[in-house]
Amino acid sequence: MPRIDGQRVVADLRRLAEFGRYKTGVHRPTYSPVDVESRHWLAEKLRGAGLDPVIDGIGNVIGRNPSAGRRLLVGSHSETQPYGGWLDGSLGVIYGLELARAFAADPSCAGLGIEVAAWADEEGHYQSFLGSHSFTDVLSEEEIDRVRGRDDGTPLREALQRAGLAGRPRERADPGHYVGYLEAHIEQGDTLDTSGLRIGIVETIVGIWNYRVSVIGEQNHAGTTRMVRRKDAGVAMVRLATQIHDRFPEIAGPRTVWTIGRMVIEPNAPSVIPGRAEMQVQFRDADPERLALFEKTLRELVVEAERAGPCHVEIEPTARSAPRPMNPGFQALIEMAAERHAPGMHMRLPSAAGHDAAVLSYRMPAGMMFIPSVRGVSHHWSEDTKEDDIVLGAQVFADAAERILRRA
Amino acid sequence: MPRIDGQRVVADLRRLAEFGRYKTGVHRPTYSPVDVESRHWLAEKLRGAGLDPVIDGIGNVIGRNPSAGRRLLVGSHSETQPYGGWLDGSLGVIYGLELARAFAADPSCAGLGIEVAAWADEEGHYQSFLGSHSFTDVLSEEEIDRVRGRDDGTPLREALQRAGLAGRPRERADPGHYVGYLEAHIEQGDTLDTSGLRIGIVETIVGIWNYRVSVIGEQNHAGTTRMVRRKDAGVAMVRLATQIHDRFPEIAGPRTVWTIGRMVIEPNAPSVIPGRAEMQVQFRDADPERLALFEKTLRELVVEAERAGPCHVEIEPTARSAPRPMNPGFQALIEMAAERHAPGMHMRLPSAAGHDAAVLSYRMPAGMMFIPSVRGVSHHWSEDTKEDDIVLGAQVFADAAERILRRA
Repeated sequence: MPRIDGQRVVADLRRLAEFGRYKTGVHRPTYSPVDVESRHWLAEKLRGAGLDPVIDGIGNVIGRNPSAGRRLLVGSHSETQPYGGWLDGSLGVIYGLELARAFAADPSCAGLGIEVAAWADEEGHYQSFLGSHSFTDVLSEEEIDRVRGRDDGTPLREALQRAGLAGRPRERADPGHYVGYLEAHIEQGDTLDTSGLRIGIVETIVGIWNYRVSVIGEQNHAGTTRMVRRKDAGVAMVRLATQIHDRFPEIAGPRTVWTIGRMVIEPNAPSVIPGRAEMQVQFRDADPERLALFEKTLRELVVEAERAGPCHVEIEPTARSAPRPMNPGFQALIEMAAERHAPGMHMRLPSAAGHDAAVLSYRMPAGMMFIPSVRGVSHHWSEDTKEDDIVLGAQVFADAAERILRRA
Repeated sequence: MPRIDGQRVVADLRRLAEFGRYKTGVHRPTYSPVDVESRHWLAEKLRGAGLDPVIDGIGNVIGRNPSAGRRLLVGSHSETQPYGGWLDGSLGVIYGLELARAFAADPSCAGLGIEVAAWADEEGHYQSFLGSHSFTDVLSEEEIDRVRGRDDGTPLREALQRAGLAGRPRERADPGHYVGYLEAHIEQGDTLDTSGLRIGIVETIVGIWNYRVSVIGEQNHAGTTRMVRRKDAGVAMVRLATQIHDRFPEIAGPRTVWTIGRMVIEPNAPSVIPGRAEMQVQFRDADPERLALFEKTLRELVVEAERAGPCHVEIEPTARSAPRPMNPGFQALIEMAAERHAPGMHMRLPSAAGHDAAVLSYRMPAGMMFIPSVRGVSHHWSEDTKEDDIVLGAQVFADAAERILRRA
């Protein structure tokens, strides 16, 4: 069995967290200078592990394994949420690096090839899952032409140019090349933490449906425009948002979640009546029928808001991912590895977060393993996991990878 | 009676609108190169009208009248809103220039002195009413040290330096020097336009009360954080905003207006539960008691929101200007002038926008006169007024100024 070096894993995670450090977390948006720097650092680490690294035309760092034989692709994403956590994404990437080193150092693993991927923009600073979509061949050049940065509207092409990635070829998956894809991640929720368990085996990755709701009113002077004459896009938006938060609980399942994470009004000045407003509505569930019911309800509320006037309200779906079950064989093998190193301290659970594993699962068998998040905090700089859990998780993950490679 | 030259007034307004022209409007932010250029142009025009012009240390252009006798200060501001209208502010400044010329040309007005002011930054690119606050001695050097640009945070000191104004003395009002202050302005609302009237006599400038409402929740992952565990600052903000929009109509007077013109959530990402939210609530009325009732109601709603949980909600007043009645004697004299030149075509009304006249009214008798705005459009490049109304307004204004100077 390949033996991981726990201290080396933790040290590499801490080094990676230096790129964009913010308090005890990290601010490393995709294609920002620190993100690009960290990808070059990672490529060198992969080279040191005996892999052939490449940073491709969308920013994916892929460590190809020159050895012949079976290959398992292992990884996660390496950018972070704004002012996000130090482990989200990074953990799975550094586990991949450690597995490559541990397998290379173990003569009994000769012929069992670990390849490592650090996907670009899973977090959607430009568009969620850009890197894994590119790798699995569902991202066209035309789409790259169209995509713009979520915050300042920078064209993706311009960002790629500035990151020194323009003109590089994009790596594509050759499914015949791999026995599958394996991803490790912090749970991000508190199921493991509150139940005192140490390993989660992911059964399904939930479907995530996203919508852009736009409100068009009329910009005007906040003093001289009487209330009856106003078409205030901000008022229409907060009323609709309140309706959404009132209605959704009535149709939710036990694990459904919904969020309005983004809201903007224009021109956003204290003495000007907002002429435009926009919000992004998202919901998640493992059940496709419930997702459809949520969409139907949301569309009804938009129609009601449009009818109520005086503003014009539009809705547009922006991204709808289907719920994705993980490979049952992989689940069983991760469970066996967990039982060996942490007997009785593991459970199966769904993932309420989206992951690159869902994207990869359309092209090859895919599996995911979770370790606990302290108090379930995620997408915040204070996100953390106990060092013991990080080290244990790496060993379980290596063991599971070996089982998958031998069984395949 | 001083006779104004209508074509000269329109020509000067059109010339001033060339500084920063944008479509049919003007983009001339305070201390921008075009704003500085326009102030130098204006100083030369004032010199041509027989005044001693000075551009002072805050950017005010003051045309001093060297003749002895009674003096009336006449003016408005000369910067514009971003991509704003060509008459807002400029109209009152050019009326002042024309009055200086007309009075100088009329032998019967010997000894009746017009002084002209073009105030800096009434529109608040740095801080609202900077120029008139400086002139009336309520702007300290320490405040100038602190103020920064609204949009990009440029220190005011740096802007003054770049505008070539650093180190110049700031002109101060000597109240004994003036019989009062008179300001002409477009109405900005549609009261005159829809009623077919041509002159408005301002009774009161409304009070404007502003508040920052902050909501503190807990930033977290939008997938993995179950609904019952969330402290979503965005949800709390839209619920409170909806409450405000539901409750305020019940206590509003016929002319009360309220606006939530600014709303921000953090980190404003689709897959992150907002951890903080902030909105700016503003209301305006001419009645101090109604303003107090609005504040009381707003504070009650904040307390209710805080009690309802799970987020913490705070309120902080940011700026509260008292309603300012205009001098009753001035109102009567403007009305007589209006009745002479436009019999039956004038009305008294409050100003729902703030004006430098409110600031000046703390130091000397002050009056304001409105001319119509086409469709009430304001703070937008499409703002306009008919040429006939501009010319008529100038004559009424000159007549009113003479009456004030003779009566004082």
